[in-house]
Amino acid sequence: MSSSTTPWITDVWFSSPWNYLPEATGSMNLPASLKVHDVTLRDGEQQAGVEFTADEKLKIAELLNNAGIHRIEAGLPAVSPADTEAVRRIASAGFDSEIYAFARCMVDDIKLALDCGVSGVVMEVPSSHHLIQKGYRWPVQKALDASVEATSFAHEHGLKVTFFPIDATRADIAEYLDMMETVATDGHVDAVALVDTFGVLSPHAVSYFVRQTRERLGVPMETHFHMDFGMGVANTILAVAEGVEVIQTTVTGLGERSGNTPTEETIMALLTMYGLDTGISTEHFTDISRQVLEMADVAQPSNRPVVGERLYSVESGIIATWVRNVGEELVEVFPFRPELVGQTAPEIVLGKGSGVDSIHVWLERNEMSADEDEALEILGIVKAKSLQKKGLLNNDEFVECARKVI
Amino acid sequence: MSSSTTPWITDVWFSSPWNYLPEATGSMNLPASLKVHDVTLRDGEQQAGVEFTADEKLKIAELLNNAGIHRIEAGLPAVSPADTEAVRRIASAGFDSEIYAFARCMVDDIKLALDCGVSGVVMEVPSSHHLIQKGYRWPVQKALDASVEATSFAHEHGLKVTFFPIDATRADIAEYLDMMETVATDGHVDAVALVDTFGVLSPHAVSYFVRQTRERLGVPMETHFHMDFGMGVANTILAVAEGVEVIQTTVTGLGERSGNTPTEETIMALLTMYGLDTGISTEHFTDISRQVLEMADVAQPSNRPVVGERLYSVESGIIATWVRNVGEELVEVFPFRPELVGQTAPEIVLGKGSGVDSIHVWLERNEMSADEDEALEILGIVKAKSLQKKGLLNNDEFVECARKVI
Repeated sequence: MSSSTTPWITDVWFSSPWNYLPEATGSMNLPASLKVHDVTLRDGEQQAGVEFTADEKLKIAELLNNAGIHRIEAGLPAVSPADTEAVRRIASAGFDSEIYAFARCMVDDIKLALDCGVSGVVMEVPSSHHLIQKGYRWPVQKALDASVEATSFAHEHGLKVTFFPIDATRADIAEYLDMMETVATDGHVDAVALVDTFGVLSPHAVSYFVRQTRERLGVPMETHFHMDFGMGVANTILAVAEGVEVIQTTVTGLGERSGNTPTEETIMALLTMYGLDTGISTEHFTDISRQVLEMADVAQPSNRPVVGERLYSVESGIIATWVRNVGEELVEVFPFRPELVGQTAPEIVLGKGSGVDSIHVWLERNEMSADEDEALEILGIVKAKSLQKKGLLNNDEFVECARKVI
Repeated sequence: MSSSTTPWITDVWFSSPWNYLPEATGSMNLPASLKVHDVTLRDGEQQAGVEFTADEKLKIAELLNNAGIHRIEAGLPAVSPADTEAVRRIASAGFDSEIYAFARCMVDDIKLALDCGVSGVVMEVPSSHHLIQKGYRWPVQKALDASVEATSFAHEHGLKVTFFPIDATRADIAEYLDMMETVATDGHVDAVALVDTFGVLSPHAVSYFVRQTRERLGVPMETHFHMDFGMGVANTILAVAEGVEVIQTTVTGLGERSGNTPTEETIMALLTMYGLDTGISTEHFTDISRQVLEMADVAQPSNRPVVGERLYSVESGIIATWVRNVGEELVEVFPFRPELVGQTAPEIVLGKGSGVDSIHVWLERNEMSADEDEALEILGIVKAKSLQKKGLLNNDEFVECARKVI
């Protein structure tokens, strides 16, 4: 936690003072430290059409390691020889990040993980009875037996075990807790993932999930929340405020179906709204995102939070005026400075939404000048040109507009 | 509210039963009805580089109207002649949606709105003292005087007034509430927007914001939450659970900087996690999103919630098995059926993540057959081919792989 008396505002960010009032923080139980367990190389790659080579996986792991991401889930080795190779190379690269593999609750998967030299395994099994029966066509007992056998085997061979009950949030709560307890008692569980496979948990039910799991199991917990309803970031943070110490996220929300909780917004929110510094180098976020998205061949909107291409491009006239007026005090007009997340300096761009201050900025840039009436006339021409073009003007186009007036 | 005893599961969706437990719902005060006030044509267009023509604006308004969106903010008429024309045409189109204009707290802006024939105005003014002084370089009194004068004028001329205090969430709470009270008392306020301009409010502070505003003002409230930290959907819903009856959203989160709260996820979450049916035709969501994004020239990732292009493309082998096993019972393996949001049927696609069931599906499709060993051999070839291609296989490529084995 930040020890500042005004933690909502620093040189590099400006969030809401209300976030730090007792009315907001009173019920919180933030952990002393928080670890990010990145699942880009496993769940991220599960996004349909995303295929990383072993070289790319190693490169991504290196980027994550350099940013100070605490743990990397390097993949499910059983998927292909390339995945086995990737997990092995990542595990032996000497990273500071702890390296985990993903595994089904099968002894063979654990053997493969051991061969790769990882220090921990995230071990999946279906946990809602309906998915076990309808999706897998297994008797429930089979899921239990497989979990007990495989978690025991992993533990006996020195692996840390994060148990990962698929579809927990659509299970009957008693069935879910009974299963967890059986696996923890008869098998082995170092930590349990709070798995919202289909992203269907409401923010109002997060505390219940965390508390019920803690009361019955008493082991460390890790969030794993999907984005089908856009709830991942908030739900992850609601769980952290209940004391959860590990969060599973991906670069820019890559992942199965609607993806996983994105690392960037989550870390920035914890830092600026909660004063919780994870130690991660947020300055790397934009670069990592762009490199990973290029390897994944996944597009993002220009207004993507944190890493969007035009996040610091200002078209709106009123906001161009703010930017012009505040000078270097950028946190007055953006929630955080661009360099805090590896973005470049703000730029006033020219479009239909521009205002007269935008014109003055571009005139100055071109060592031109105009009085207020002329600037307004140029503005009208610029707006019409932008609408005709359906886009922003470049400098040649601006100068052409200005020359019609001055 | 749904009156079903199992509202988390219907023929068309399957969310979490825990969302409906007293532990989750106990503190809620959901409104009897909820209206969506769409701001795509104003704040959405403020996204840098997005420029809609008047024809496009009318087309978008028509799409929103046809989907049953309750209110449309048609634009800020003062931006350009094309915007004035667009607001006028939308206001006179005979839509069921109520049409609002956006306006600065200036009498001239209100006159323009009146000329356009709208029924209400959203009237913006800066409200945090620091933004008034540093961004606008105004004395605080100027913001107050302008608000009192312009809201009174709008009300006297028959317009409904939603007062829109920019940057409220970074204001001192006492200053914010005093300003609101002055404008409501000396000017006129039919409703107040809860404005989180920079998206900086934590989920834990939402209740405080809503309750403080309600206690002091006692007027209806409308959320307006930005996405800088990805909190818009959850925060909007947390506010609704405090009784807020109007939410401001945009198509697929278009908007200034990181955009506004997206309509799609918000409505789907309210429907499936809270049993709150807004009456909006969710079946239109995918079509509206694709048309609007094309006009806006904004890309989205293939895993975008609700409307993403590959949301129902299944590559992962384990999930292909689920899909194959559940047959028509799609809510077992997706949070909602594709047709509920206008998506097409699930498709098992072929990539590095595929499993043996994926091969059987594609063999059947090509009227080919193989035993289990052959299918596994084909799977290995398919995985290698996908990795080499770094993408999904088409049918010709699959058949070529299969022919190498059978």
